[in-house]
Amino acid sequence: MEWLIAPISAVIALLVAIYLYYYVKRQEPGTKKMREISGAIQEGANAFLKREYKTLAFFVVIVAVLLGIFVPEPIWMTKTIAKNLSLALAYMFGSFSSALAGYFGMDVALKANVRTANAARKGLNTAFPISFRGGAVMGLSVVGLALLGVSIVYGITGDPAIVLGYSIGASTLTLFAKAGGGIYTKTADVSADLVGKVELGIPEDDPRNPAVIADNVGDNVGDVAGMGADLFDSYVACIMAAMLLAVGLLPGVSPMENRFVNLTLIFAGLGIIASVLGVAVVRVGKRGDPGKALNLGTYITCLVFGVLTLVTTIYLQIGYEIWGATVVGLIAGVVIGITSDYYTSINRPPARTTAESAKTGAAINILTGFSYGLISVFPPLLGIAVASASAYFLCESVSPGFGVYGIGMSALGMLSIVGTIVAGDAYGPIGDNAKGIAEQSGLGDEVIKITDKLDAAGNTTKAISKGFAIGAAGLTALALLATYQQIVKDLLGKVIVFDLMDPLVMLGVLIGITVPCLFSALCMLAVSKNSSIMIEEIRRQFREIPGLKEGKKGVKPDYAACVDIATKAALKALLPLITMSILITLGVGFICGIKALAGYLAGSIFSGFLLAILMANSGGMWDNAKKYIEDGHYGGKGSDAHKAAVIGDTVGDPFKDTAGPSLNTLVTVISQIASLFAPLIVAYALIGL
Amino acid sequence: MEWLIAPISAVIALLVAIYLYYYVKRQEPGTKKMREISGAIQEGANAFLKREYKTLAFFVVIVAVLLGIFVPEPIWMTKTIAKNLSLALAYMFGSFSSALAGYFGMDVALKANVRTANAARKGLNTAFPISFRGGAVMGLSVVGLALLGVSIVYGITGDPAIVLGYSIGASTLTLFAKAGGGIYTKTADVSADLVGKVELGIPEDDPRNPAVIADNVGDNVGDVAGMGADLFDSYVACIMAAMLLAVGLLPGVSPMENRFVNLTLIFAGLGIIASVLGVAVVRVGKRGDPGKALNLGTYITCLVFGVLTLVTTIYLQIGYEIWGATVVGLIAGVVIGITSDYYTSINRPPARTTAESAKTGAAINILTGFSYGLISVFPPLLGIAVASASAYFLCESVSPGFGVYGIGMSALGMLSIVGTIVAGDAYGPIGDNAKGIAEQSGLGDEVIKITDKLDAAGNTTKAISKGFAIGAAGLTALALLATYQQIVKDLLGKVIVFDLMDPLVMLGVLIGITVPCLFSALCMLAVSKNSSIMIEEIRRQFREIPGLKEGKKGVKPDYAACVDIATKAALKALLPLITMSILITLGVGFICGIKALAGYLAGSIFSGFLLAILMANSGGMWDNAKKYIEDGHYGGKGSDAHKAAVIGDTVGDPFKDTAGPSLNTLVTVISQIASLFAPLIVAYALIGL
Repeated sequence: MEWLIAPISAVIALLVAIYLYYYVKRQEPGTKKMREISGAIQEGANAFLKREYKTLAFFVVIVAVLLGIFVPEPIWMTKTIAKNLSLALAYMFGSFSSALAGYFGMDVALKANVRTANAARKGLNTAFPISFRGGAVMGLSVVGLALLGVSIVYGITGDPAIVLGYSIGASTLTLFAKAGGGIYTKTADVSADLVGKVELGIPEDDPRNPAVIADNVGDNVGDVAGMGADLFDSYVACIMAAMLLAVGLLPGVSPMENRFVNLTLIFAGLGIIASVLGVAVVRVGKRGDPGKALNLGTYITCLVFGVLTLVTTIYLQIGYEIWGATVVGLIAGVVIGITSDYYTSINRPPARTTAESAKTGAAINILTGFSYGLISVFPPLLGIAVASASAYFLCESVSPGFGVYGIGMSALGMLSIVGTIVAGDAYGPIGDNAKGIAEQSGLGDEVIKITDKLDAAGNTTKAISKGFAIGAAGLTALALLATYQQIVKDLLGKVIVFDLMDPLVMLGVLIGITVPCLFSALCMLAVSKNSSIMIEEIRRQFREIPGLKEGKKGVKPDYAACVDIATKAALKALLPLITMSILITLGVGFICGIKALAGYLAGSIFSGFLLAILMANSGGMWDNAKKYIEDGHYGGKGSDAHKAAVIGDTVGDPFKDTAGPSLNTLVTVISQIASLFAPLIVAYALIGL
Repeated sequence: MEWLIAPISAVIALLVAIYLYYYVKRQEPGTKKMREISGAIQEGANAFLKREYKTLAFFVVIVAVLLGIFVPEPIWMTKTIAKNLSLALAYMFGSFSSALAGYFGMDVALKANVRTANAARKGLNTAFPISFRGGAVMGLSVVGLALLGVSIVYGITGDPAIVLGYSIGASTLTLFAKAGGGIYTKTADVSADLVGKVELGIPEDDPRNPAVIADNVGDNVGDVAGMGADLFDSYVACIMAAMLLAVGLLPGVSPMENRFVNLTLIFAGLGIIASVLGVAVVRVGKRGDPGKALNLGTYITCLVFGVLTLVTTIYLQIGYEIWGATVVGLIAGVVIGITSDYYTSINRPPARTTAESAKTGAAINILTGFSYGLISVFPPLLGIAVASASAYFLCESVSPGFGVYGIGMSALGMLSIVGTIVAGDAYGPIGDNAKGIAEQSGLGDEVIKITDKLDAAGNTTKAISKGFAIGAAGLTALALLATYQQIVKDLLGKVIVFDLMDPLVMLGVLIGITVPCLFSALCMLAVSKNSSIMIEEIRRQFREIPGLKEGKKGVKPDYAACVDIATKAALKALLPLITMSILITLGVGFICGIKALAGYLAGSIFSGFLLAILMANSGGMWDNAKKYIEDGHYGGKGSDAHKAAVIGDTVGDPFKDTAGPSLNTLVTVISQIASLFAPLIVAYALIGL
């Protein structure tokens, strides 16, 4: 029963999260104006989430019913209808948990940002803890809810295959949250910038801009709720994958008796304890550097995790090789995060060269950022390649067949520190929003400068955690591919080789490559299309509301109209997008069979990685290139170089915040759907095995 | 000896090419001013080619010596030094043939463009044949020289393995020609546009612009010589691959006795005959449509090829399945070409929506074009997937092991009509240049309108042939992967499965994915960097040469300075680029072994395809979106939408003319290098098989 360490540490994480939540809530929310603005943001965000969750509730229930009918076996053929039922329930539970984590995190973020802005009036070391602890609530509730959910499902059913249902529930909800939030936030952001900054020349976050509230809402629903859900999904999926791979190591042994299954949960639990400690040490002095404090938290978490798992390995007398695979994953995660920081940081050559190239115009600026984005694909892919191969060979040396379990454990190692990572990541938008609120309520330059400092540190952690999320999703996807192979093997009683030279596998790969392309294209087109609508609305308001442009006292734009457009448009774009991805997946499986589907999964992993990294990093680079110019280089704000860089930044926005980050989740979702439907596909595929 | 139909039809093609060359040369080259301009272009182009070929000659000789020493076996270990020697000689011969085809084509294009401009004064139906026959010289000399070269090497050595040497020679030269020409042409184009059109507001091709000659030279070295070399390379590689795969079908039978080896050459020869006929029927009436005439030529070629090969199949009593695979490839090529036209044509929704989005600014215009570019990846990948799988299963039904030969034959089927395709493609830049010359020599609106019509038809054929080139390279790459497996099998005496779940294969795939990313990024960065230098030079000339800006009579810019910058910069960027690609390939092979290298090849094919299609199509879309606006939509020339579209077009230029088209060749080169070094890698790889 050592695995109970998992639910216990999950509960501890949740208790700490609740404690921090009340800490944040206790702080002063500031002046009337500040409360007004934050109230409007809260209202918009709640409206969006409510609408989104309502739409999703329908979707989730329908899918749950379909799953209950068809998988793992159609109910008219199965003897154990209980399994269908538990799978459907687990699916709903997974969706619910992911939604809850997103909601919690967003709620505290909305509370934290106004309080951070208010505290910034007293200084950096008063403001920082509020913003960071706001982020920590998100981080700890993500890991706490995730591991608690997995433990409950596993504890009740004792069957990792049902955990797959829970994981798919979490993943589909995440896909909605990421893609929907991403479309929402960039529609608002791009429209607000294009009319406000470019056409009218009014500053960012200016309260006259009708889209400003929608923009602030977007930061929260996209960045906070979205990224939280993203790592929730990878975290659950990788635990589930490692559990299923462990089951295959000792055939005939019930999962509960299988020490490798339990080890998965134990290590996950230890990761949470490490995260709680890591979060606890993050502090910053009066003149301190928030960025350093955040990094320290990450390193402490890694160290504690490494030591705890080593001690456990010795105590439980499990091979060092498995511990080694876990640590390899952890190190790879950190390395990938750091290289992704290199390619986006404002202090490094790529972003600076991109900024310099803006001198010769927007086109060259875009080409330069895009090129560096392509180059930045190299380190993370190499990192994932080396990590997975090392983990495989380490564990394969224990006993044949352990290699793939090693890949699962290295993914788990990478994701073990996810609590700290999400805490640092959610901190980012809180600082950003605090800055926005400070600007909109006119708190003065000194305060804005402090919030700026918070924001800047947030941008770095955000870059690192995006790289980290991609790396983690990458290793998880490889583990999921292995899981799929294992499931197929169990079904057919023999190993099916996914030979690249098999024309069906190759067909699958080639089609799989296109799915992330289609998905990200449709996300971005939704942003372009929705922005056009919103831009018209913003222009209309400036035209028709007298005194708005001049900033006449008492004249307010109709914020709600913009919030409404962004909400509706995002939800409308979502359903076809996700239905398409699922249908192509099932289509390939049911028409061309198991092998083609394996190729398809691999293909989607390949192009999904490539595009996710390219988009995240080039987007980040353009953003920082613009900021670098705004800091006074190459002519500073208002220069031609700045105008060019703003265009680059606007191209990058949907790259890095809409299309790029959804791709991880897309890959996870289709991999798990393939695993879930494998039995049906084996039975009914038209051609091929 | 039926295979002798190959050299015979190659000679016929060359004779027809020579006839057409003299036809073009006989035409009037126009007024003194026209001859002056065309003389300057010719001079610049020759200077570039001379310098490029001189650099390459060094490279080729060094590589030939290295090959002679090391492959197929190190000379100190081999018993048959003759094989090393023939391989080295074949390599040099391949490089030479490819260079010669490029030079021929460019020479006639340079003659044809001024003569076309002159003939346009008399009307469309006088001008069209000159431009088209100019293109036809290129098309027929490409296929003629290629097939003659292959036949000579094969006839002398009787060994398809030596043909591999010839093919690598052609491919490396092509890679230089494409990447070098691509960097050259876009450096000149981007710089000329940015200073001329954007900063000073002078028209395109204005003789005051110091970069105008470099720009015109670039069109020729990039588009004409580059695309010719590109298809030369794919054509030779696919014949070679099909031959090597055929050898594996009848082990123990000498190649010359192997009817499937000979069938490869026979079908290639019939393709040339079909192309000669297809070229011959292209004619246009007084009010005719050049685009339709060109398409008719393509369809006739396909039809003739289909019939001739069918008759041959019956006569030689070879299974219809093999003929079927060939035809499948042919159809797939045409379909891919047509879809690629859909995504770039000025008359279709993608380009028009992209144009419309320019109303909301450059950023949305770029996002829209990029998104459609991502979507456009779907049809060609699906086409290649279905074609290769169908060809495989058709031929595998003949006898086990014939499947991969089917893939080779379908690639050959696709490339059989290459003569006609290159003719139509090379026609494009001739029309474009004729327009440029007409503008620079002030021939008047009526003439410019006619050259415009020629140019517009050229843009469509260019889009189709780019799609076609990508499809052909795709199928060829799959055939090369199969060839690699075959070579490994022959070396080790057993089939090596490239299992996707093998961690070394996966490691290879992940690294392979990054190589096209790095390559295209470095190409584009070279363009950005070189443009900055050239832009400074253009600005300097406008600043320092009195009367230049005002267009004072007799004042001429220093064209040669710009030509010189473009030439030097392109060559300087090339060597590290290509050396890097080769070293990574050999590094993966010698460190991680045969399986990892197989994964690596597959990975480079995957991302190479994706990026090549994305870049070619989004680039074409932005170009045509701009043209659509210039036709008077959304405010027409000079409007804000137009300015935004010009930025999109400038981003697209290096996408579609530098990075995108080189990727095909990159993939071919590394696939062949892997095949060539397979024996050494088997013997010396550090880890793995």
